[in-house]
Amino acid sequence: MAHPGTVETPLTERSSRVSAARKLTRRAGRERAGMFLAEGAMAVTEALDALSGQHPPGGAPTEVREVFATHEGLRRHPEVADRCSAAGVALRIVTERAAATLSETVTPQGLVAVCGLPRPSLDGVLAARPELVAVLSDVADPGNAGTVVRVADAAGAGAVLFAGDTVDPYNGKAVRASTGSVFHLPLIRERDVSSVFAACRDAGMKLIGADGEAAEDLHTAETRGRLDGPTAWVFGSEAHGLGERSAELDHALRVPVYGRAESLNLATAAAVCLYTSARRVHRPEA
Amino acid sequence: MAHPGTVETPLTERSSRVSAARKLTRRAGRERAGMFLAEGAMAVTEALDALSGQHPPGGAPTEVREVFATHEGLRRHPEVADRCSAAGVALRIVTERAAATLSETVTPQGLVAVCGLPRPSLDGVLAARPELVAVLSDVADPGNAGTVVRVADAAGAGAVLFAGDTVDPYNGKAVRASTGSVFHLPLIRERDVSSVFAACRDAGMKLIGADGEAAEDLHTAETRGRLDGPTAWVFGSEAHGLGERSAELDHALRVPVYGRAESLNLATAAAVCLYTSARRVHRPEA
Repeated sequence: MAHPGTVETPLTERSSRVSAARKLTRRAGRERAGMFLAEGAMAVTEALDALSGQHPPGGAPTEVREVFATHEGLRRHPEVADRCSAAGVALRIVTERAAATLSETVTPQGLVAVCGLPRPSLDGVLAARPELVAVLSDVADPGNAGTVVRVADAAGAGAVLFAGDTVDPYNGKAVRASTGSVFHLPLIRERDVSSVFAACRDAGMKLIGADGEAAEDLHTAETRGRLDGPTAWVFGSEAHGLGERSAELDHALRVPVYGRAESLNLATAAAVCLYTSARRVHRPEA
Repeated sequence: MAHPGTVETPLTERSSRVSAARKLTRRAGRERAGMFLAEGAMAVTEALDALSGQHPPGGAPTEVREVFATHEGLRRHPEVADRCSAAGVALRIVTERAAATLSETVTPQGLVAVCGLPRPSLDGVLAARPELVAVLSDVADPGNAGTVVRVADAAGAGAVLFAGDTVDPYNGKAVRASTGSVFHLPLIRERDVSSVFAACRDAGMKLIGADGEAAEDLHTAETRGRLDGPTAWVFGSEAHGLGERSAELDHALRVPVYGRAESLNLATAAAVCLYTSARRVHRPEA
């Protein structure tokens, strides 16, 4: 473990610890080990914060096993060493090249935490009777998935449910795009989309799909009271939308396009939909 | 000009036409030539559509001088050749390498249109008394700028005003991120931020800034009627927000964060703000 003043030989990409961590850049490796990587100063700090239980447990990692850091990473973010020390988490110095092999970004910050995968249950999450959740069905892009986690967190959603063939939210790019929000709320992964829908309905939620082709638009639907009550917003794949899944939902709504834009991207549409619902949940006083 | 069946020697990156077009990848080159590049099948098609005047002139290019295409680009998007032919626009076959030198993307599609820079005037745009415009003040990232153009278009804004040191909307990455919306509405570039604010106010618009640190939140402000009437939404830089510019505005509002997310990114915040206003402009019937 590195302490201020300690001179330590950096671990290379061939060291067994770095090799083991590199397996976590793949989904199968994460599942096998029950661990994932959080990259960058912000994510590492959020992981340590979540661990320390200052916040409700939502997306907190089960553990932070170790933090890999380059000398340069620690020079830019000296607070990381203090935070590791305070949390009793091992800080291991690695070479730039070793850090790069753990990174999924173009400009690695040289800071990576090895975190225990939280495994919240769908039943447990829904037992808390959330007013708002986001469901991703077959969403492919990790950046989109992470951005939706961030906006769902901001909008006060109780969870994000990753259904079907949706990308793993613990993919490095998704973790990064969430800017720490993966540690803030429970993320459920469930292959069977229909069972996710059924569980939401059993928990008293309405299922509303965002669908650019839907006949009814979000703002009209809101005026008609369709967004009243607990809501699970369902977002489909970037390429094919919700497709036949729409038939399993209570409503399909489109974000109205008032100008001439072709469409909105997934994350933007999710922001507009989730915030429209959030405003109804948290009705401001005039 | 390429016609079906014509065998043509592709232009290389050393040809004078490709060299001239390459200068348009830089702002100074665009200003000098009064031209810009639109890359990808969608942008090329939108440029040709806008030119043909099927739509109001908003962001239409003054001309499409030529379209560069690789054989592979035309194989994937054969409609581009037909559209060029119908519009009387020269289609020039280029090598993959030549196309790559004109591209600002990782995976070039091999299709680039050379377009005349529209130069709408601020006074002309505001004379139309728009209900909603977006103002970017010192926004640095072209992807953000293009995404805001897209969402402003979707929300029915009458224009996007690029003020101060904001990135050029005709930057290749911004054009691409707008997914064609740069051709749909007027984009005004004006270095003097205060004069943009004054012009908006003279046109009867309220100036509302999005500011994560503001005391009042968007949803409360809406309930209080602050979003009623013509509105210019002002978004500041990714790094520093609006800073001292806030003092020049009528209101500063934050997008409320109901959960524990640190913040929202610029494009997401813009989507939530612009759509909240759009709903008031286009009040749906119950």
